[in-house]
Amino acid sequence: MVITRVAAGEQKKFQVLLGTFIHSKSRAELEYLHNAAVAVDRQGRIAAVVKDRGSVGVARDEVLGQMGWRADEVDVVQCGEGQFFFPGFIDTHVHASQYPNVGIFGKSTLLDWLDKYTFPLESSLSDLAKATKVYTACVRRTLAHGTTTATYFATIDVPATNLLADLCLSIGQRAFVGRVCMDRKGFCPDYYRDESPEDSMRATRETIAHIDEIDPGYRLVSPILTPRFAPSCSKDVMNGLMKLQREKNFPVQTHISENKDEVELVKTIHPGPGSYAAVYDDHGLLTPETVLAHAVHLTEEEGNLISQRESKISHCPCSNSSLASGEARVRWMWDKGIDVGLGTDMSGGYSPSILEAARQATLMSRHLAMQIDDEECREKCKLTVEEALYLGTRGGAVCLGLGDEVGGFEVGKQLDAQLIGLGEVGEDGSRAGENSNDWVDAGNVDVFGWETWEEKIAKWLYNGDDRNTKKVWVKGRLVHSRR
Amino acid sequence: MVITRVAAGEQKKFQVLLGTFIHSKSRAELEYLHNAAVAVDRQGRIAAVVKDRGSVGVARDEVLGQMGWRADEVDVVQCGEGQFFFPGFIDTHVHASQYPNVGIFGKSTLLDWLDKYTFPLESSLSDLAKATKVYTACVRRTLAHGTTTATYFATIDVPATNLLADLCLSIGQRAFVGRVCMDRKGFCPDYYRDESPEDSMRATRETIAHIDEIDPGYRLVSPILTPRFAPSCSKDVMNGLMKLQREKNFPVQTHISENKDEVELVKTIHPGPGSYAAVYDDHGLLTPETVLAHAVHLTEEEGNLISQRESKISHCPCSNSSLASGEARVRWMWDKGIDVGLGTDMSGGYSPSILEAARQATLMSRHLAMQIDDEECREKCKLTVEEALYLGTRGGAVCLGLGDEVGGFEVGKQLDAQLIGLGEVGEDGSRAGENSNDWVDAGNVDVFGWETWEEKIAKWLYNGDDRNTKKVWVKGRLVHSRR
Repeated sequence: MVITRVAAGEQKKFQVLLGTFIHSKSRAELEYLHNAAVAVDRQGRIAAVVKDRGSVGVARDEVLGQMGWRADEVDVVQCGEGQFFFPGFIDTHVHASQYPNVGIFGKSTLLDWLDKYTFPLESSLSDLAKATKVYTACVRRTLAHGTTTATYFATIDVPATNLLADLCLSIGQRAFVGRVCMDRKGFCPDYYRDESPEDSMRATRETIAHIDEIDPGYRLVSPILTPRFAPSCSKDVMNGLMKLQREKNFPVQTHISENKDEVELVKTIHPGPGSYAAVYDDHGLLTPETVLAHAVHLTEEEGNLISQRESKISHCPCSNSSLASGEARVRWMWDKGIDVGLGTDMSGGYSPSILEAARQATLMSRHLAMQIDDEECREKCKLTVEEALYLGTRGGAVCLGLGDEVGGFEVGKQLDAQLIGLGEVGEDGSRAGENSNDWVDAGNVDVFGWETWEEKIAKWLYNGDDRNTKKVWVKGRLVHSRR
Repeated sequence: MVITRVAAGEQKKFQVLLGTFIHSKSRAELEYLHNAAVAVDRQGRIAAVVKDRGSVGVARDEVLGQMGWRADEVDVVQCGEGQFFFPGFIDTHVHASQYPNVGIFGKSTLLDWLDKYTFPLESSLSDLAKATKVYTACVRRTLAHGTTTATYFATIDVPATNLLADLCLSIGQRAFVGRVCMDRKGFCPDYYRDESPEDSMRATRETIAHIDEIDPGYRLVSPILTPRFAPSCSKDVMNGLMKLQREKNFPVQTHISENKDEVELVKTIHPGPGSYAAVYDDHGLLTPETVLAHAVHLTEEEGNLISQRESKISHCPCSNSSLASGEARVRWMWDKGIDVGLGTDMSGGYSPSILEAARQATLMSRHLAMQIDDEECREKCKLTVEEALYLGTRGGAVCLGLGDEVGGFEVGKQLDAQLIGLGEVGEDGSRAGENSNDWVDAGNVDVFGWETWEEKIAKWLYNGDDRNTKKVWVKGRLVHSRR
């Protein structure tokens, strides 16, 4: 068996990880820690980091000495030749309920896509057997791609949404789970709509109560308030959610300015505030805890408002290309001081992988660059390998209020990480080991042996997939493993 | 062992393939042949096709009866539940010599990318040990992705180019192998340039003579005349190649109008003809046997000229996005009556997969669509799943003069095909069979069981990879196999 499902249960032993660790030093730069040792305590927190020693053995002994741990109370994970540890990916926008539809969108764009493909599937998940199948597949698949934190839209159905929270907790993925609020007649279909604003709020509270019960303190799974987007929400629902947000400073997720027709629709439905962002702001939903998905067609004023409110943006390039929504400007957002993360946005986006989202973010930025005449502006517009990987790790962590908790290998952070292995090409052009009986496919990243670390990382970004993600830890617990 | 390297040697037994066959009926439409049988003769040609019977057993018996073949002289390949046969992919533009650089391009664009990354690597392949490693890996990797025909740029080095031809023949990939002509001082670097036009022509003839010797009649491997592109070729080389082309109606490959700076450069170097396409036309290189890679920034006049000359275009979306070259207009080319295929253009393109090129072709067309105000034109601009797969199979075949030979399952065509298998999701959300000891990773296409065939094909296009390509045949010979 290649894939291992690791049984539930907290990490109980000390752990020491040995080898090369790579994470973002800044948006523009990756840091490479070689011959390093990372000590992880019984709660899954990084307790010590030793790096750049003469060998991993020296680093190991030093970190054990620092911690005062005996060798027999420690699990050691040493990465193989050419392997490295990387922070787990963070998916800041994903509809778990749409997972079965990945790749199915035809020539549709947002509004007809919702009616044709999305609402029918989402509504069908009130069947809990179907929801079990879909949500389990989604959580396992995204974990296998190294997604240690996912920010989920579920559906309007409370039991199915609660089931998703249960699954994240038992399988071991850090998650924000949102029951979707959508009550506005005229936009939401009759067969898939909260019956009233009161119903919307009651159902929202039910999911919060469930998560309070299964994970008090939200150590792994947290509720997130989820007004679907302005066209589907009444003022009463938005106001109700605002009040609820203030009670416990809950996180909030919604969509904004994904598609031009949607922007026009919002102007018609909510003519008062003057802009899409202002609609949310008028209802108190632009908070520092708010993640806005897409943000493709924002005006300068909307960008400034979002920056001022310290709300965050989830950039979803696969989705924006697939549904021909537009080209979101990450550099423009950064220049305004807005924090940005990546979202797969399944199934507007076709892929469960944040590595794919990072790859497509670099390409999306080049499509924007192609339209810029000024050479300096054009070059600036392009996202680098390093910036794309920042978006998928630390960038996402900051968006979810987890900037001090996950996203890198620093003392005090939790161990949400993946072990990455690339493929090696033998001297005869075969793949290393392919003639042995227990050879395992290492995927499409072919390392010839002369590459720098920076080049290996670029190769991983552009040709890597779940085969390269050998192990995944969340909060120190090994939750996925493959050979 | 998961991957099987199949030993060299011609197919000697009759074969019958049974199950579902899918291929392009037209650009817009896929044809689904269910309960079908395809008989393949000892030369690897399709001798009979029976479809839409009550069961594969009925189809098998009928095809055996038609052919008068005894069961004991036939190898039968039956596709499993949910699997299907698909034509092999055709890569109409790929630099085998650049394979180790996939994903490595930084923020560069065409002209600086050539100097910084490409010429140094290509020139280093005069080391035949290195060339063996690189070319073997490239041929095997592309075959594993279902590429049954590849149109290769090698390097200027004759022995290394001849080695690539040898490898294609022995490993069993149908290929056009081009020794690269580049002699123009001022553009080509001193360390990597044909010494003179005479040297260019002599070296070109040497590779042709080699292929004449190893594969008389070009049954699997064919030479292709390869002026790199206008900036790197003297008039004498282009004229010499024109004369050589006329001798045996050789195919020709080159680049055109990939990048705006390149277009400007061509105007400076070759000011007479008036356009990039006209430069080639003035030297007699726009023939019906010519494949022009990229064609991003063509004018209307150039499009009309190429159409008139019946030259073909290789669309390379991964490359054009990565190097920010621009967005080539496939629909515009088709409207002009130009035949178009897909190219990976490694390593301008980051992926060895034509499935990835097809996927990115649909996204590229949506980036173009985003810029179009008129709704009808915008919708027309978008490429469908079916059109993208046409480009990767029959479209490519037509571009290479193989329209009657490969690209579909018709009597008289050669069997260049792949067996595709998708992944199944169990009722509990696990992947089917993942708990068994001999479970093999079926990749990222998760079939839930309720999808139509059209939806399964869309899922394959957007999340498929080499794991889904279970077997590959070229000219009836099984050349790649994995569980």
